[in-house]
Formats: sequence, structure tokens, C-alpha cells
Amino acid sequence: MAFNKRIKIKHLLDSGKVGEQVTLMGWVRTKRSNKNVAFIALNDGSTIHNYQVVADPNAISEDLLKKVTTGACIKVQGEIVASQGSGQSTELTVNTLEILGEADPEKYPLQPKKHSMEFLRENAHLRMRTNTFGAVFRVRHALAFAVHKYFNDKGFFYIHTPIITSSDAEGAGETFKVTTLDLKNPPLNENGDINYKEDFFEREANLTVSGQLEGELAAMALSEIYTFGPTFRAENSNTTRHLAEFWMIEPEMAFYDAEDNQDLAEDFLQYVIAYALENCKEDLEFLDKRAAEEEAAKKADQRSDMGLLERLQFVTQNSFERITYTEAIEILRNSKPNKKKKFSYLIEEWGADLQSEHERFLVEKHFKKPVILTDYPKEIKSFYMRQNEDGKTVAAMDILFPGIGEIVGGSQREERLDKLTQRMDELDIPQKEMWWYLETRKFGATPHAGFGLGFERLVQFVTGMGNIRDVIAFPRTPGNVEF
Amino acid sequence: MAFNKRIKIKHLLDSGKVGEQVTLMGWVRTKRSNKNVAFIALNDGSTIHNYQVVADPNAISEDLLKKVTTGACIKVQGEIVASQGSGQSTELTVNTLEILGEADPEKYPLQPKKHSMEFLRENAHLRMRTNTFGAVFRVRHALAFAVHKYFNDKGFFYIHTPIITSSDAEGAGETFKVTTLDLKNPPLNENGDINYKEDFFEREANLTVSGQLEGELAAMALSEIYTFGPTFRAENSNTTRHLAEFWMIEPEMAFYDAEDNQDLAEDFLQYVIAYALENCKEDLEFLDKRAAEEEAAKKADQRSDMGLLERLQFVTQNSFERITYTEAIEILRNSKPNKKKKFSYLIEEWGADLQSEHERFLVEKHFKKPVILTDYPKEIKSFYMRQNEDGKTVAAMDILFPGIGEIVGGSQREERLDKLTQRMDELDIPQKEMWWYLETRKFGATPHAGFGLGFERLVQFVTGMGNIRDVIAFPRTPGNVEF
Repeated sequence: MAFNKRIKIKHLLDSGKVGEQVTLMGWVRTKRSNKNVAFIALNDGSTIHNYQVVADPNAISEDLLKKVTTGACIKVQGEIVASQGSGQSTELTVNTLEILGEADPEKYPLQPKKHSMEFLRENAHLRMRTNTFGAVFRVRHALAFAVHKYFNDKGFFYIHTPIITSSDAEGAGETFKVTTLDLKNPPLNENGDINYKEDFFEREANLTVSGQLEGELAAMALSEIYTFGPTFRAENSNTTRHLAEFWMIEPEMAFYDAEDNQDLAEDFLQYVIAYALENCKEDLEFLDKRAAEEEAAKKADQRSDMGLLERLQFVTQNSFERITYTEAIEILRNSKPNKKKKFSYLIEEWGADLQSEHERFLVEKHFKKPVILTDYPKEIKSFYMRQNEDGKTVAAMDILFPGIGEIVGGSQREERLDKLTQRMDELDIPQKEMWWYLETRKFGATPHAGFGLGFERLVQFVTGMGNIRDVIAFPRTPGNVEF
Repeated sequence: MAFNKRIKIKHLLDSGKVGEQVTLMGWVRTKRSNKNVAFIALNDGSTIHNYQVVADPNAISEDLLKKVTTGACIKVQGEIVASQGSGQSTELTVNTLEILGEADPEKYPLQPKKHSMEFLRENAHLRMRTNTFGAVFRVRHALAFAVHKYFNDKGFFYIHTPIITSSDAEGAGETFKVTTLDLKNPPLNENGDINYKEDFFEREANLTVSGQLEGELAAMALSEIYTFGPTFRAENSNTTRHLAEFWMIEPEMAFYDAEDNQDLAEDFLQYVIAYALENCKEDLEFLDKRAAEEEAAKKADQRSDMGLLERLQFVTQNSFERITYTEAIEILRNSKPNKKKKFSYLIEEWGADLQSEHERFLVEKHFKKPVILTDYPKEIKSFYMRQNEDGKTVAAMDILFPGIGEIVGGSQREERLDKLTQRMDELDIPQKEMWWYLETRKFGATPHAGFGLGFERLVQFVTGMGNIRDVIAFPRTPGNVEF
């Protein structure tokens, strides 16, 4: 017999009518009671709002009501009535109440008080039951759906690029090895090296750092594709901006040049943020208040000019500033913090890699809007970026967002075989392993471009969460692989 | 200056008008020419259909036309005119033609002839440029989008469960190890064992075999969630049905019992298949013909009764048969192939694990429709499945599809702490490592259920492709990690 005969609290709040008999199931957030009445705040995860359930202690057994504690799961059946109190317009008068699962108040970790983010991270199996994390993961869902919807509506095809790969030629960072060998007694070959012939894939394999190269292969057949999958970096970075495992979105498009690429990236970012604003109104209002409280605790000179919602609306309503790296260097060189030696890394000459402090200055102080930085020196960018005619720069773009810094990195790709192999030689990238990549430059090559968006950076920007570990369900960082 | 000023062939076929001036870009599939006219079949991946481009050899230089070979990428500008030939109603009369990228006919691997599937697998970087693989990957995209749309519309939240995990307690299969240790000189501890304290995660880590357990944690907060991510099995299976890396969809729902779970799975499968039928009409028509040709090459007694499209429509229009394992055993025991000893594994008594031959008999011969098999003996199912009152069976379900066998496996989950830990003890599953899983049974437990769908199995079913390696862009199997 089907058990799932309930109305979700989100639907109840949207369209429940006074007088209706309904069944709710969910987790108790709080209970306040006296001899005459018990108020239960119930949450079922469908919305940030709790629904007020009102029980008569004289009609429900004392034993049962005693088990209605924070964290317990209950099923209540009753009538929707007009609410006397403030807040919501209706509440539920309980006819029957059933405890589905208790939560011993002495032991349940999430008591109704403020917990530290560190504590909640250690309890990642339960933290989604809090207001903050419920909101974050509903927004994360909406953003993921918006990504798929945007590309689907535009005729892009979703490609699952490989997670395990033998290609680490991109040099994007340190990789995790994937193996089935016995680590304690690995087979050796005649030279005394690991004999990978005996490994599962019969050669060295690692976790992907990017699906871009394989994405390009698909774009050379289907025109416009995107990936959305996990990527990995085995870097020992214990920061609020780095994860060892994170999700990337990487569109690759045949027939796009650098400008087409910038247009797409800007339109895409504005779309997904607007989608969240429209579809996650209540969660974002909550997160906006939360962010404001966090800001208030900061020193005056570190507070940002805009609130969370304001910042999101600003990004959707204003076009991004587009400048070249060369122009940016001029601005930075002549900037106050550079002249007054306030930057940790002073900008002295063309060719310098930009640090986070410079990116933030451009976005937050100088332009006060998202910036698309283009045409970087080839020395500080990857081999596959298309070389500009000046011989010095490549058709790269980074998109910089307030508070986040780089959120998108992309480029027109080098489609000219001779230029590509020459650059690979300069950088000692072996051509032999990349034969398949090079073949797309031999057979039916075309101008094409693409970019990568770190999904967690986007979720951070939209939710205002300060630490990237708080926008993915079970974060992986050095020493952290629990759950 | 933006380069991407073109109309996609799909849009041109849908809504191009005679007299319009348009620019097309794409890859040449074939060229037929004589002194007076050259017909170029152009494909840009947006649709299975090529568009006919007609060039006048007297207006276009001979040198240029010579480079218009199979696989070359070109840009053509011209006027849409009514087509003289059969097939499409319009074609393009070329004004200007530009070669974006040549494809030397002596070297380009994909000449216009039939290539073996093995050859195309070795050229996975190019195979998406063929009719078959173009169709397969467009259908794969549509199915992936349908999955997200179905769950989003129902208020489920998409959760990214971890790829790297320290939990291999599920025992679903052999796992890949993930490490940054030097395999040749791994650090040892005082007992002479690998000192995982020096590894990236400071303990043993592996690639996930399933996101279910973590999905359950999220469902205990957000009610209804789903995962859609890569999973891994390090099994040395060289079959047409196994991959080392594949994508799984795993919904987990609080407040669902076994029947709710069956209802959801059936509705979900029918939805995504109907979505593909509606949105991939042309690709599926092509694949239907392709499957019919494959069938015709088989021996008469091995051919299936239905064509591909017929089979898909049948699944969307007929409710699935639901029977218990016990009933299935009775049917199988009394079946002709069992009595005549045609099964490789004869069904003699209750408790036997069902083989593919038995599943196919039930689906293809006995019921002639998809079957939901429920309530399996607990001995042949996982520890987390809810124990039925008979003490012998668990609230499991497998969904069996014609030609594919098991496409979905799921169950109501055991929410009762004492029953769960007892079963874990019986199976020697350590409770300590699973503390977080057990806590969801201690705090606010509730009846809940879920299932897993192997995405590639679904794509196989919908596209009619015989080998699972042909429905994922870059398949990973023993010894295969190229690209």
C-alpha cells in the first residue's frame, strides 16, 4: 500500500485552502508548548519555510508529544485553518500525529541554536537539515537545472567526457592516480619501474582535470556541446576557494571566435543567475539576510558595497566590461594602490600574472562590474589557446566577478596545426599522446572556442557563501574524504 | 569581429524560406560533381539530415572545389532555392565558398563507406561525425535532459554525491584506488603496511560505485532528491553490457515505500522514453532502420518481435507487469525451457539468483512487456534493503526490459536501526565506518526508498545499439583509456 500520501509544505503554502484535510510529513525544527497548546514548526525540505502545526495536548497522548523533539520525523493529519499568529496565513490543526523517527535531544547534534560552519561540515550528513544548507542546496539544484536548460534551449548537446583518462598533457594541475595495482607489492618491469601493463587500463591513468580536450572533439562533429561533470586537482590547497573534487561546465563551440565566446559566456552567466533569482526567491531572501549579518560583523572597510540580492540583480542587468590584458596592466600600473605600494605584488611591467588583489581592484573598485579580460600574454596561458597576430598574446578570456575573482576561463582554441604543434614543442608537450587532438586540426578544422565555469564558484557567488566547502554536499579537500 | 554568423541546418530545414540569403558552416559528407554542377552534402551536427549545397564549377575556382572532400569543413553563403531533386524541398545555391579546414582523402579515416564498429571505436575522436553516432549522442543528450526535467518538474533536488570516497562498504563491486602516493616507493608504517596517513586524503580512498548512501542522507533533509553522476567498477568484464566508468541516476525519496518507489520508477521510465520519441523523431527513425538491418542479418529465431520504435512506443503505452520473485520462480520452474532443460541454469528451488536468460524469458516470452520483479530473497540482495515481515525476503525491485535485462535496481531502504545493524553484522559490514549512515536511522528516521538506473543501459534501449561502448563518447573498459 502506497505510503507517500502527503502534500509538500511548498505546495501547501502556495495553494492550500482553509478547511482542507491534509497529511504532512517532515522533520521537527522546534516545539513550543504549554498545557493548552503545542506549536510544532515542521520542515520537509521542499521550501525554507516551516509550517506551523498546532496540537492539543489534551487530544494527543503526552507520551507521543514528548517524542516530538527537534530533529524527529513525524506524520500529521489534520485541517488547514486560518492562522491567528503573524507570519503565515494558515496553519494545521492536528487530528492524528505519528512519530516516524525519534531524535533523542541528548544526542541529536543539530539543536536549535547557532552552530559553527566547521561543526556543520563535520556533520555534513545532517547539515542539509538546517535553513542555510537547505537553501544552498535548493539554489545549487536550480543553478544546475538552469545550466542544462540554457544549453538545451540553444541546441547544445550534453557530452559526458571521461573521468578516468590517460591524458594529463594539459598541465592544468597535479592529478590523482587511478589504479587497481597492489600498492604494497606493485608489479615491476625489467627496468624496475611499475609495470602498468598489469594495471586495469594497461597504462597509467588518472582523474581528469578538465573535459575540454574531449569536448572539442565532440564540437568538431555536433557544432555546439557542453560538459557538466566532476574534475579533480590533487593540490594541497587549504583555502576557501579550492576543492580537490569539483564540478565544471565546459561548453565548446565550432564556428565561434573569441568574441562569440565572450558573448555566449556573458549571456549564459546572466541567464543562470536570473533563473535563480526567479526560481529561488525565498531561499535567496534568506541568504541575503544571512550575508548581511556576515557583512555587519566585518570591519567597515572590508564590507562590500552591495547586498547579495543587489549584487545578483546588478550582474543580470549590466553588461560586462571587456578590456584587454594590456589595457588592464595600464590601469593597474597607474592605480592608487600600485602607486602607494598597497598591492602585495606591484604591477611593474607587461607580462606580469594578475593576482587576486588586482582582479578584485579592477572589478570592485575600478569598473564596479564584472570584467571580461582578454588577450593575455601567451606565456601565462595554455598551449591550446589561439595565438594572436601580435605574436605575443593569445585569444584568452577570464571573467572576473565581484567577491569571487575568476569565475570563467576560456579562449578561442588554436585550430592551425602548425601553430599548435609549434607551441606544444616550445612547452615540451608530447604530440604522440595527443594524436587524437591533433587529428581534429588535420581533418576538417575550423575556428572554435570554449570556456570553463567552476560550478561551485558560481554557487558561491549566487548564495553568498564564503567557503567553497559549504556549497558542495560532501567536500573533498586534503585529508577530507569522509562520507 | 564575431564569426558565428550562420544558420544551423536544423533551423534551415525547419523554417528556411526560398529566396533567403544564408550562411552555412559544416562538414562535407559527400560531393558529386561534373562539369556543370557540384552537389555537396553538408552536415553541421545539429540534425541527422545533410543539406544539399549546389555549386557552379564555372563560378567557383577549381582549386577550391577540389578541396571540398569528405570530412572537410566549409563555409558557404548563398540563396535558398526550391530543390529539383527528391528528398528535401530546398537547397542552397552557392555564391561564395570558403574552406575552413581540409581533410586529405588519402588520410581521413572516415570515408563514405561502411566502417566496422570496432574501427569507429578506435576512432572515437571522429566517430560522432557519422550518422549513427551523431544520432546516438543527440538522443543521449535528449535523455539526459529529460531526466533533469522530469525530476525538476516534480520538485526533486539534484545532488552531486562524491566521486572519491572512503566508503566501499556497499560491496557493490571492485573499486579503483585513488592516490597521490609514489607507487614505486610508497611510504610504509611501522607494520610494513602502506602508510595512508601520507596520502592526499590521509586514508584509503577509491572511486564511488554508487551515490545511493549519500543520496539517502540528502533525502533525509530535502525529501526528494536524485543524483546523476559517474560511477565505477574495476571488474574485468569484457562484455557488451559492462563499462568500468558509467553514469547512474539515483533518486532517493523520504516517505516512499516499495510501492511508491515502483510507481515512480515506471512513470519516470515512460516519461524519458516518451520525451525521446517526441524530441528525437528523425534520429530515432534513422536508428530504427539501422536496427532493422541488424535484425535482418540475424538468424530468424534470434530476431526480436518488434522494431525499435515499436518497442519504445510499447513501453510508454503499457503498464509494467509487477510480480514477486516467488511468483517468478514458479513461472520459471514450470516454463518450457526449464522443463526441456534449455536454460543453462535450471531453476530448481526458491532462492536461486536469476540469470539473464531467466529475465529475458519473463520479459520477452512470458509477459511480453517490462516486468517489475519484487521481494527477492535477502541473501541475494544488499544489506540496506528493507526486510519484509516473512523474515526471508526484502523490499527490493528490479525492472527488466526487453533486450536489455535489468535496467533499474532499487528498494525500500531499511530505516529500522536494529534491523539494519543486525543485517550488517550478519554480513560483516563494519558499522564504525558507516556511522553517518546509521545516524540517519537514529535521528528522524522515516520510511524511504530509491532506485538506480544505469544511464548507458537506458541509452542502449532507446537507440537500439547492441554494445554499451557505442553509447558513451569515450568508453572505459579493461585496457581502454585512450582519449
